[in-house]
Amino acid sequence: MVVSDVRPVVDAGRHPAKRVQGDHVEVSAVVVADGHDELGACVRHRALGADAWDEVPMSSTVNDRWTATVPVRELGRHEFLVEGWVDEVATWRSKIERKRAAGLETALDERALAELAHPTSHHVRSDTYQLVVDRPLAGCSAWYEFFPRSTVDGTVRHATLRDAIDRLDHVAAMGFDVVYLPPIHPIGRSHRKGRDNSLLAGPDDVGSPWAIGAAEGGHTAIHPQLGTEADLRALVQAAEARGLELALDLAFQCSPDHPWVRAHPEWFVIRPDGTVAYAENPPKRYQDIVPLNFDSPAWRELWQALFDVVAHWRRVGVRVFRVDNPHTKPFAFWEWLITETHREDPGVIFLAEAFARPAVMTQLAKVGFTQSYTHFPWQYAPWQIRQYQEMLTTGEVVEYLRGNAWPTTPDILTDEVQQGTRAVFVERLVLAATLSASYGIYGPAYELMESVPRAGAEEYGRNEKYELRTWDLADPRSLRGEMTRINRIRRQYRALQHDRSLRFHGCSNERLLAFSKTAPARDLAEGAARTLGDEPILVVATTDHWNTQDGHLQLDRGAIGATEWGPIEAHDLWSGETYRWEGDWPYVRLDPNVNPVHVLRLRPAPTTEGDRLA
Amino acid sequence: MVVSDVRPVVDAGRHPAKRVQGDHVEVSAVVVADGHDELGACVRHRALGADAWDEVPMSSTVNDRWTATVPVRELGRHEFLVEGWVDEVATWRSKIERKRAAGLETALDERALAELAHPTSHHVRSDTYQLVVDRPLAGCSAWYEFFPRSTVDGTVRHATLRDAIDRLDHVAAMGFDVVYLPPIHPIGRSHRKGRDNSLLAGPDDVGSPWAIGAAEGGHTAIHPQLGTEADLRALVQAAEARGLELALDLAFQCSPDHPWVRAHPEWFVIRPDGTVAYAENPPKRYQDIVPLNFDSPAWRELWQALFDVVAHWRRVGVRVFRVDNPHTKPFAFWEWLITETHREDPGVIFLAEAFARPAVMTQLAKVGFTQSYTHFPWQYAPWQIRQYQEMLTTGEVVEYLRGNAWPTTPDILTDEVQQGTRAVFVERLVLAATLSASYGIYGPAYELMESVPRAGAEEYGRNEKYELRTWDLADPRSLRGEMTRINRIRRQYRALQHDRSLRFHGCSNERLLAFSKTAPARDLAEGAARTLGDEPILVVATTDHWNTQDGHLQLDRGAIGATEWGPIEAHDLWSGETYRWEGDWPYVRLDPNVNPVHVLRLRPAPTTEGDRLA
Repeated sequence: MVVSDVRPVVDAGRHPAKRVQGDHVEVSAVVVADGHDELGACVRHRALGADAWDEVPMSSTVNDRWTATVPVRELGRHEFLVEGWVDEVATWRSKIERKRAAGLETALDERALAELAHPTSHHVRSDTYQLVVDRPLAGCSAWYEFFPRSTVDGTVRHATLRDAIDRLDHVAAMGFDVVYLPPIHPIGRSHRKGRDNSLLAGPDDVGSPWAIGAAEGGHTAIHPQLGTEADLRALVQAAEARGLELALDLAFQCSPDHPWVRAHPEWFVIRPDGTVAYAENPPKRYQDIVPLNFDSPAWRELWQALFDVVAHWRRVGVRVFRVDNPHTKPFAFWEWLITETHREDPGVIFLAEAFARPAVMTQLAKVGFTQSYTHFPWQYAPWQIRQYQEMLTTGEVVEYLRGNAWPTTPDILTDEVQQGTRAVFVERLVLAATLSASYGIYGPAYELMESVPRAGAEEYGRNEKYELRTWDLADPRSLRGEMTRINRIRRQYRALQHDRSLRFHGCSNERLLAFSKTAPARDLAEGAARTLGDEPILVVATTDHWNTQDGHLQLDRGAIGATEWGPIEAHDLWSGETYRWEGDWPYVRLDPNVNPVHVLRLRPAPTTEGDRLA
Repeated sequence: MVVSDVRPVVDAGRHPAKRVQGDHVEVSAVVVADGHDELGACVRHRALGADAWDEVPMSSTVNDRWTATVPVRELGRHEFLVEGWVDEVATWRSKIERKRAAGLETALDERALAELAHPTSHHVRSDTYQLVVDRPLAGCSAWYEFFPRSTVDGTVRHATLRDAIDRLDHVAAMGFDVVYLPPIHPIGRSHRKGRDNSLLAGPDDVGSPWAIGAAEGGHTAIHPQLGTEADLRALVQAAEARGLELALDLAFQCSPDHPWVRAHPEWFVIRPDGTVAYAENPPKRYQDIVPLNFDSPAWRELWQALFDVVAHWRRVGVRVFRVDNPHTKPFAFWEWLITETHREDPGVIFLAEAFARPAVMTQLAKVGFTQSYTHFPWQYAPWQIRQYQEMLTTGEVVEYLRGNAWPTTPDILTDEVQQGTRAVFVERLVLAATLSASYGIYGPAYELMESVPRAGAEEYGRNEKYELRTWDLADPRSLRGEMTRINRIRRQYRALQHDRSLRFHGCSNERLLAFSKTAPARDLAEGAARTLGDEPILVVATTDHWNTQDGHLQLDRGAIGATEWGPIEAHDLWSGETYRWEGDWPYVRLDPNVNPVHVLRLRPAPTTEGDRLA
């Protein structure tokens, strides 16, 4: 009796797989025995620390793989194992039935049932594996980032957290879930950066919010020009009242003026000349930032202080954090910080901003990050997007890494987006929002199609990181309508609320990209009648932002659960048009000056005019 | 610092991966650290029980995967682990170099080198994993099965082991490696089967060799009509003198007349009426065979007796065993038997005859079987063959399961082979011998293209299992020439001596099958000049055994290492013809009445007539 290849399991059980509350987890394992005995198997699972195990019977599928669907509702860590056994009664029954079918005598054998010592035998258990169950927001979320100091319209002045509250209606109306603010702490004055990242700041320059710490305080203080902790609390509550969650930035680095530099020089690297080393990644130098030394002999106190930073903002009501450059700090630190934080509140969400190599990104996700920024901004060609997204959604990775796709960020304005056409902005918005169940927009800059770079850089010119900006949100060119539309579609169609079912479809034109997602099966208890919003969604996008492109899709009917369908009704949720597709090679045509995308809801086509009207 | 995803590893380390002596094992792992440090890594390995570890430095490839090639020469179990570290010197050097390149001052930093406490730091080790190193025969072998009692030509009489010796020259001349004999033990008389599996045997019927045990003895005795242990010893030595190894059959079951039935009734299942239960898998019944009860309270003594059977024949000189129906005995028994046998002689080879579900076959391979019969006999269509062989050679399976492909066996004569054309025999022979580094032929029956089934069955009519046969090996229709040819090609071309590089190529005609293998890289120490026999081999076969089929291959140049080649010279080792292929869609055409296969040796085509002559 052998139980092997249990799923979902990450790194042979060293790290937990991730799910969200309400998920139905498909647990499976290969369960085999020698000989011809009939077997049985179940999943035993419980929230970590609970006394009793819940048992869910498994059923055999093909090739000796047994599966069961385990609903998870409780937040936090769960554990599970698979148990298999020989079903002695079923074995006896099957033998008798086969004999009867062959017309052989069974009288003698029927005595055997009474002689069975136990109805089951040879019980074997797999190892025990863990599962992290997060809040639903961890699995599906639309983020909107803005700089609170640039939230006054018309006149340029340093805005406050109270001004930021006034911006919330605008964000909520577009259907976002999370409002993320860059650091809100006092900003250092030493080596402060000027406009457009210049090395010399003038007296009125506001500095980069990532140069954290000044005389007014460090990571647990609020920049005086933004307001007070009471203002932040009001902002958190105002967001909540609008169905939004506030996310803060965790950038574990200091300006040279940070109070810790004097109070705890042992937390920094001291150079031979006695000065504190600033951050550098040659040839780049960040004179306005000094890194923390996680290898310091005083690392325990440092780690604790950083834990206290998180705890501080959690007490204000913040449960979502965007983490700046986690790949430059030890994996062990993050594993400890996230585990300890989750011990106090398993609902805290950490988004890793690590534009690093795949092995580093995946390791951060393994040690506990809830979501991870992806390299989506740099994937332009259909083949690149397909290769990269398949890497994220195939195999073990999808069990623990949840991508969060951003077309741009204050640090990233790619060549592609610098093209500046409406088509490129719409295409990147819709791809981010449909390829990835979690995605984010860098606030007014994207909405207003800002596309002018700082000369020679892959960054915005007049970057909000270094100066106050004012935005005309009423500009008729705004993408507000498109953002509202895609967020509404995401909320309406369950297919777009997870990444596990992502499948790419071939196309005869290599400038066109086509992919689909399907909704996960519903719990039968929820009622079979609720099928609205369960349809598969097929997205077709053109990556040519200037000329019309057309071609034939190679529709993978298996991927969209349409093998039994005849003709397909493809209703474009983006344009409102409806197509009827016969066969597996539908013709598509996209003029980027009209619509660079189709977001198609697929159904079996009505077969007669009568059906269509009904 | 993290070391993860070490390969080759089976079931997260629960079972060893398999290799053969002389292999160069590619060991790899993902090695990453936070930050920008330069890393180092090595494989530490040793034969199990050795004092010292050998270290092989690893080099970084892509996506943080580090690899090293570890040569294994010693027979038996090995262990290995991957160690990673931060290379402080390289980190310092890289930083200085980047600074210099950027024209920044480095004087201050150069002091740092002297201050490095250690040249390396942060050492981390993976778990320790095991590797089984078998004899080369375990990885590549051509088997030939014959019934020793049917080795006299012309007249029908019960042949002896001495007659079998006379058959060896014939087998050796065809280039086989292993001669496998069905059981050679005394055959039971109770319920003896007659010709063509009839339930009533006449007085002259010889019975099935798998009904083991009679008054003359059991599993350690030799059937008196075959000869003595001295004769067997002579056979073993005669085989060895011809470059052949003798394989015996381990069929752990008894005839009702086996001495164990009286001496050890506790090893059998006793029915309520006091009789010993015979084997049955309803509706089938095997009244001439009683199964051993591995669940018996006396299982320890039974297991030991079976171990002693193996030890007995090993003392006679036998080191290769074909195991009958291992899937009807406990996995734990086989793991114990094979491990204990390998403790005494790690060169013993066990071939599992388990035509069972994939999970059962793979489990038997995991617990120690050296080779496994595959479902090759039932794979006819190109898509089936491709799907099945990819299952065997992709992912973890190829690390521990070595397929052994047989076109027919005394138990298996498929519909396909019953077609009886020379084309079907040649096609199945060549596919078995090239798809699989180990393959086998059921002796004279295949050679002489026996194809008449017992009515309604998937078995040979006039089956040697139940009667004496005589064979006219000089028949001009014999496949002896084809067998000799394919075995010579297998010995000459290293590509065909393993399964790891098997890749399938597309074809515009779905009746044609195309696949390739490439030779593993040679140890540089062996000298780069030895490239003869290193060429890639491409096999093209038609599965239509009546009509000519043609089409265009979709050549995967990456799979054959030919991305840099221009036109290709494809020399057919089967027919002697040579083709010149331009582009990636070469035309192929096979007339099954002439040659149902191409066995093509690929090289870059000479570009000019001058080159061709040179």
